[in-house]
Amino acid sequence: MTLPKTKPPLRKYRDVAPEGDVPTTRTTGLDPDFWYPFARSRDLKPGKTLAVRFAGTEIALVRPEQGEPYALEDRCAHRQVPLSMGVVKGEQLQCGYHCWAYDRTGACVSIPYLDRGRTLPNGVRGYACREAYGFVFVFPGNQELAQATPVPELPYHGDRRYKTRVLDRDIACHYSFMHENLMDMNHQFLHRSLMGRIRAKLLDVREGEDWLEADYSFSRTEGKQSLGERLIIGSSSTDKYADLMTIRTGYPYQTLRYWTDGKREEPPALDLWNAYVPTDRAQNHNHTYGLIMVQKPPIPGVIHLLWPVITLFTEGIFGQDRAIVEAEQRAYEAQGADLNNEVFPIIQSLKALLARRGVPLPPTEH
Amino acid sequence: MTLPKTKPPLRKYRDVAPEGDVPTTRTTGLDPDFWYPFARSRDLKPGKTLAVRFAGTEIALVRPEQGEPYALEDRCAHRQVPLSMGVVKGEQLQCGYHCWAYDRTGACVSIPYLDRGRTLPNGVRGYACREAYGFVFVFPGNQELAQATPVPELPYHGDRRYKTRVLDRDIACHYSFMHENLMDMNHQFLHRSLMGRIRAKLLDVREGEDWLEADYSFSRTEGKQSLGERLIIGSSSTDKYADLMTIRTGYPYQTLRYWTDGKREEPPALDLWNAYVPTDRAQNHNHTYGLIMVQKPPIPGVIHLLWPVITLFTEGIFGQDRAIVEAEQRAYEAQGADLNNEVFPIIQSLKALLARRGVPLPPTEH
Amino acid sequence: MTLPKTKPPLRKYRDVAPEGDVPTTRTTGLDPDFWYPFARSRDLKPGKTLAVRFAGTEIALVRPEQGEPYALEDRCAHRQVPLSMGVVKGEQLQCGYHCWAYDRTGACVSIPYLDRGRTLPNGVRGYACREAYGFVFVFPGNQELAQATPVPELPYHGDRRYKTRVLDRDIACHYSFMHENLMDMNHQFLHRSLMGRIRAKLLDVREGEDWLEADYSFSRTEGKQSLGERLIIGSSSTDKYADLMTIRTGYPYQTLRYWTDGKREEPPALDLWNAYVPTDRAQNHNHTYGLIMVQKPPIPGVIHLLWPVITLFTEGIFGQDRAIVEAEQRAYEAQGADLNNEVFPIIQSLKALLARRGVPLPPTEH
Repeated sequence: MTLPKTKPPLRKYRDVAPEGDVPTTRTTGLDPDFWYPFARSRDLKPGKTLAVRFAGTEIALVRPEQGEPYALEDRCAHRQVPLSMGVVKGEQLQCGYHCWAYDRTGACVSIPYLDRGRTLPNGVRGYACREAYGFVFVFPGNQELAQATPVPELPYHGDRRYKTRVLDRDIACHYSFMHENLMDMNHQFLHRSLMGRIRAKLLDVREGEDWLEADYSFSRTEGKQSLGERLIIGSSSTDKYADLMTIRTGYPYQTLRYWTDGKREEPPALDLWNAYVPTDRAQNHNHTYGLIMVQKPPIPGVIHLLWPVITLFTEGIFGQDRAIVEAEQRAYEAQGADLNNEVFPIIQSLKALLARRGVPLPPTEH
Repeated sequence: MTLPKTKPPLRKYRDVAPEGDVPTTRTTGLDPDFWYPFARSRDLKPGKTLAVRFAGTEIALVRPEQGEPYALEDRCAHRQVPLSMGVVKGEQLQCGYHCWAYDRTGACVSIPYLDRGRTLPNGVRGYACREAYGFVFVFPGNQELAQATPVPELPYHGDRRYKTRVLDRDIACHYSFMHENLMDMNHQFLHRSLMGRIRAKLLDVREGEDWLEADYSFSRTEGKQSLGERLIIGSSSTDKYADLMTIRTGYPYQTLRYWTDGKREEPPALDLWNAYVPTDRAQNHNHTYGLIMVQKPPIPGVIHLLWPVITLFTEGIFGQDRAIVEAEQRAYEAQGADLNNEVFPIIQSLKALLARRGVPLPPTEH
Repeated sequence: MTLPKTKPPLRKYRDVAPEGDVPTTRTTGLDPDFWYPFARSRDLKPGKTLAVRFAGTEIALVRPEQGEPYALEDRCAHRQVPLSMGVVKGEQLQCGYHCWAYDRTGACVSIPYLDRGRTLPNGVRGYACREAYGFVFVFPGNQELAQATPVPELPYHGDRRYKTRVLDRDIACHYSFMHENLMDMNHQFLHRSLMGRIRAKLLDVREGEDWLEADYSFSRTEGKQSLGERLIIGSSSTDKYADLMTIRTGYPYQTLRYWTDGKREEPPALDLWNAYVPTDRAQNHNHTYGLIMVQKPPIPGVIHLLWPVITLFTEGIFGQDRAIVEAEQRAYEAQGADLNNEVFPIIQSLKALLARRGVPLPPTEH
C-alpha cells in the first residue's frame, strides 16, 4: 500500500542570489599539488613515526635518529597495516608485523624470509617532505611537481620583531567553510562577547585566477576593546575606519594582515597564515594549522608577560569560529545540498575560486 | 568466483496472522498537521531560545523578554546555521553569525551590511506556537490549518482535585511502538517486578476512522499491590475485574483513564495524556511528552507527601516500557522488516490506523 | 558543473603475486554447520539466559535451574524482542513482554491471553546445544546435521599433566585475519618486545580439502628468552632449529602444538585450540574462544605459582596480535578491497581454503 497523503515542502523562500551556476564547492576536493603542514616538528621525535592523513590517504611521517624526516604511504605493501606502527631502524622503516623494510623513497629493501631468487616487491609510495616554520610539510600530490613547487614564504616568521603562536587542531567541516568564515568580516558579530560590536567596511576587492583578497576597515559601535585584542593589534584609533585589514585566499592557503594605523607599507601589527588540510576522504573534516605572528611591543620582554592573555583571546575567537563552521557543516549534511543565500559578492567569488581550483573527490583509495 | 554453497534460511515458522495486507506502520511518518509539545514552558527562559526537532526538521523556539513565545525554522536563510545559536533582541531573533535579524513570523527584517537598494531575502518559515498545560506547543505542518486545529482538551489538567506529573524524555523507537505498548494491556507481565502478576480482560473495543479505544478490567493473580500503585489508583478491590481502564489512541495522541471502582461517570483515579513526537527524519526516535494526572486522596496535602513514591513507581514502569520498545526498534532495524506475528486483533487495528492516518516519510529536508 | 581536473591514482606498485584468482576471503561467511563455543559455562548461571550472536543471528542461551542448557533464536515469535530478556520458568522460557512461553525446542507452548480455539504459533528456531571443555557449544547451521557432527576432540584438555588457560574476547576483524596471523610464523617480529628476535624456518606443509598444516622450527637471533616463554615451552635448546611447531587450520578451528625438543610422538609442551566466531552479519568482528593447554613442570604445584607470569605473557602476545589484525581489518575497509601482496605461499593456500570452505554472507536476517 502506498500512502496517498502528501505535504507541501517545508522550505519555500525566494532566493536573493540564486546559485544555480555556482559550482558545488562543498563537494570539491583540495588540490593535493601543494605543500601542506601535517605535524609540528616537535611532535615528530627522532627514531619515531607519526600517522597523518590527507583526504583519506594515510601517510606515515618518519624521523630517523639521524637526518631529515621523510613520508611514506602508511600501508605496508604486504598486508596494508600502517607502517607508522613499525620500527625506525637507521634510515629505514620496518613494518611491525613481518619486518618488511623500506627506505626513505618507499622502496622495499628487505623481506627477511623471502625465498632466494624472488624479486622484492616495489614497495610503497613516497612523498616529498620538508621542514619549515616548525612544521613538517608534505607534498601529497603528483611527486614530479614537488620540487618546482615552493613552500609558502612567510617573511615575518622568525623575524625578531614578532612572536608566533601556533594553531593546530581538527575541525569537523569542509575547508571551504574555513576560507569563507575568515574572508567575510561581517561575521564580527560572532565575536561580540570578546570584541564588542564592530562594524566592518569593505574597502577594496582584488582577484586573480587562483587568489582573491579584500581590504577592510573597522569601527567599534558598542562595547570596549578587550585587553587581548589591544595586545595583538594595539589600541584602536579614536578615528573610525583608520585601520586596515587585508585577507587573502592565495590558493590553497589563507592569510590575514592587520595595520592598526592603516599604513600598508609598514610591518603589520598582526600576520596570520592558515592551511586547512582535509583529513577524511569526503573532506568534511580538516586539520587547521596556523601561524599567528604578533608584533612585539616596544619594551623588550613584555610580549612574554602578555602572551597568556593573547593566547586566551585567540583561543576564544578560534573557538567561536569553530562552533559556527561546524554548525554550517552539519546543516549542509542534513540538507544534502548547499542552500546558501549569499548576499556578499566577495563570498560568491571565493566559492567559485575554491571550486575552480579544486579537484574531484577521489571515489576510492586505490 | 562465486561461492556455490548455500544455507537454508534460518527463520521458518508459520504465521498465525499473515500481515501481507497490513501497511508498513514502521515506515509511516506522523502527520505534522497537529499541535505537538516540543518543550516544557519552564525550560524556555525569557530572552532565550531552544533547539527542537520534528521528524528531522530543525525548529528554534524563542521566548522574548516580553510577550508570547514563537517558533521559526532553525536555519538562518543566509548560511543555514541554527538561529537557536543566535541572540534574542526585543521581539526579534538575530543570527549569531552575521546578525541577520528575523521577526516572529520568520521575515528577515535586517542585514546590517546589505548594500543600499537591495531587497531583503524572504527569511525563514515560521510555525504557529502556543503555550498550554506547561508545554510549548508548535504546529509543524501546513500553517494554514493551524488556526482551525484545536490544541487537545485535558479537562483534569489544572483541576484542584488532581496533581500532575510530567513525562519528558527521548526514546529510541518509532512512535507506533509507543502506541502499541500502551494499548496492549497483556503486557502487564513486563511490569511483574513492580505490580505483581495481573491478568487483563478485554471488555470492549470501539473504533473510528482516526481513533480506537479499548476497555479493560484487571485481576491480580500473584503478588501484592505495591505502595506506588495503590497511591495512584487506590486500593484494588477484592472483587476481581471490578475496575475499568480505557485506553484510547485519538490520532495522534494517546490517553489512558482508570476508574478503581469501574464507574466511568465519575472522575477517574488516573488520567494520562501522551504525545510521541518523532525527532529524526526516519522517525526511529521519539520524544515522549506526557501528563499523568492523579486524583488526590481525601486528606488535603497528603498527595505531596506521597508524591516521591508515585514518582518512583511511574519512573520504574516507564523505564521498563522504554527498554522493551527500544528492543523492538532494534529488532525491526536488524531484520529490515516488520515480522510481527500479532494475535491480538486490537493491535492489528491500531497498526492499520497509524498507517492509514500517517504520511510518507520525507525523502530529504528541502 | 563537473570539475575537469583529475589526478593520477595514488597507489601504483607492481604485484609480486597477483591475486586475481584468489577468492574474496574477506567477504566469505564462516560455515555455520559446525559446533562453536558461545560462552563460558560458568557465565551461564542456573535460571538465567545469555544473549549471543553468530554472524548477526541473535541466539539466547538458557540454563534452567535443573537440566541441560539449551539455545533458541533470540527473538520472540510475537514482536521479536529478545527472549534473553525473559524469564526462565522451570524448563521453559517466557518472553518478558507478553509472557509467550517456549520449551527447549523453541515450540511456543503458551500465550496466556490467546482466544480459546486458536492455534498456538509455531514458535522460534531451536539450536542444538552441548557443553564441553567449560564452554557452551551451539550448532548454528542446519539442525539436521548437528547430531552427526562431532564436537572437536581435545585430548589434553582435562589431562592431569596440563593446566588450561581460556581466551575469551571480541576482536574487530574478519576471522580469516586470525587464521592467517597464527599460520604465518614470520610474524614473530610482531612479538619482538616479548620474545626477542626469532627466525622461523618452514619445514613442511601438508594440505587437504578442508585442512592445512605447517611445521616450523625456530632460532633466536637476538635477545633472550623471557620467563613467560620459558614457563610455557621450556628452556629453548642451545641447538638452533631443534624444536617443532605444528599449526593447523582444520576448518573451521585452528590449533598449534609445540614440542621443545622436536619429538612429535611425545605429549607437546603447548597445545592451543582456537575458534573464531563471527558476531556481526558482515563478519567483520569475531569472538575468539581459545584453550591454551600448558604441560606442567615436573614439581607438583609449581604450575600454580608460575601461572600469573604465563598469563601475563599470553595476554601480551594476544594483545599484540589483536592490535595488528584489527589494523588489517581497518585497512581492508578503508580500501574496499583485499590488496594483499602475499609472498608466502602457505598463506595464499590458507586464504583459498577459507574461501572454498566458507559460505556466502547472508543478505538479510529473515
